[in-house]
Amino acid sequence: MLLNSPAVEQLIEAFRRLPGVGKRSAERMVMHLLSAPESESAEFAHAVQIARARIVHCSTCRNLAESDPCTVCANERRDHSIVCVVEQPTGAIAIEKGGTYKGLYHVLHGVLNPLDGIGPQELHLDSFFARIQRDGIREVIVATNATAEGEATAMYLSRQLAQSDVQVSRIAHGVPMGGGLEFADDVTLSHAMQGRTKID
Amino acid sequence: MLLNSPAVEQLIEAFRRLPGVGKRSAERMVMHLLSAPESESAEFAHAVQIARARIVHCSTCRNLAESDPCTVCANERRDHSIVCVVEQPTGAIAIEKGGTYKGLYHVLHGVLNPLDGIGPQELHLDSFFARIQRDGIREVIVATNATAEGEATAMYLSRQLAQSDVQVSRIAHGVPMGGGLEFADDVTLSHAMQGRTKID
Repeated sequence: MLLNSPAVEQLIEAFRRLPGVGKRSAERMVMHLLSAPESESAEFAHAVQIARARIVHCSTCRNLAESDPCTVCANERRDHSIVCVVEQPTGAIAIEKGGTYKGLYHVLHGVLNPLDGIGPQELHLDSFFARIQRDGIREVIVATNATAEGEATAMYLSRQLAQSDVQVSRIAHGVPMGGGLEFADDVTLSHAMQGRTKID
Repeated sequence: MLLNSPAVEQLIEAFRRLPGVGKRSAERMVMHLLSAPESESAEFAHAVQIARARIVHCSTCRNLAESDPCTVCANERRDHSIVCVVEQPTGAIAIEKGGTYKGLYHVLHGVLNPLDGIGPQELHLDSFFARIQRDGIREVIVATNATAEGEATAMYLSRQLAQSDVQVSRIAHGVPMGGGLEFADDVTLSHAMQGRTKID
């Protein structure tokens, strides 16, 4: 009903498909684009097309990248014997920001979720296991999210690699650094208690 | 630093220029567009271009529309002697949703704001006053926002039209319908007290 324009309706719908965008914010963004000079909306559309055209999936780690192999996989100074498995490219970006991890990544682009029909095939786990063997990976760090699906995926990967020489580990979940105990939720706290480590 | 891709950086910047979008949400939206099938991002860019190409400014009321004059100005069944002045097209949409207003609109695309260099010329007020005279408008309802700039703009319009036969009114500001007094802020409450109306 906004402006009675199907084209505007479609644009609002397109914005609503983006994560975290509701009806109101989609409308506000669209009105901004329509009110702004034509050059701004043209630039915006162009930026979407350019970015999407430049971005490829790295054939080794399946991360989004401007080149194949990506800059991480191509970097000889990184430890090519460790692979950190993440759900999404954003996970790899977050770990990179930490600045201490020097191994490689593998992006699943999802997690095992039988209810949604996401199985090992949808996550291309065959190519992941092939990569582990081919590249002589020694350790796999599973950094999927601490959700039921993330945990199940970690468990699945660990079982599949149990017969190999590859060491499979899971990132630690617990109270955030600098965060007081009173701000941590119950599940995190009980997880932090169970996952306690000995002080040397 | 995200992906080390200038194209992706530019797209994130483009999203951040939209209202209500911060760095994190821009990143999430961009990662969604880049992870999704190429067709989805192509559709998205296309929707922006199509909508912007279809939308024009109505030469009478300056509202965004698919035709000139817009469907409101062209509607013979509306009251062509009353004009409601709003800051943005969203204001007209909000009033249309109310469903009781049957007059026309005039969209300023801004408010008087000398500090930002927005004067009567930037809001094309000349053409507004010309319209009022030419079309024989009897009443102007100023529905700019209840901000300092919105009030100043309402005051300016009222003074400029003081010598004419046009009646200028301001929409009522007060406690929202259905809202308890305890939820209204101090300024709204004092405004509601001052603007009290006699019960017949």
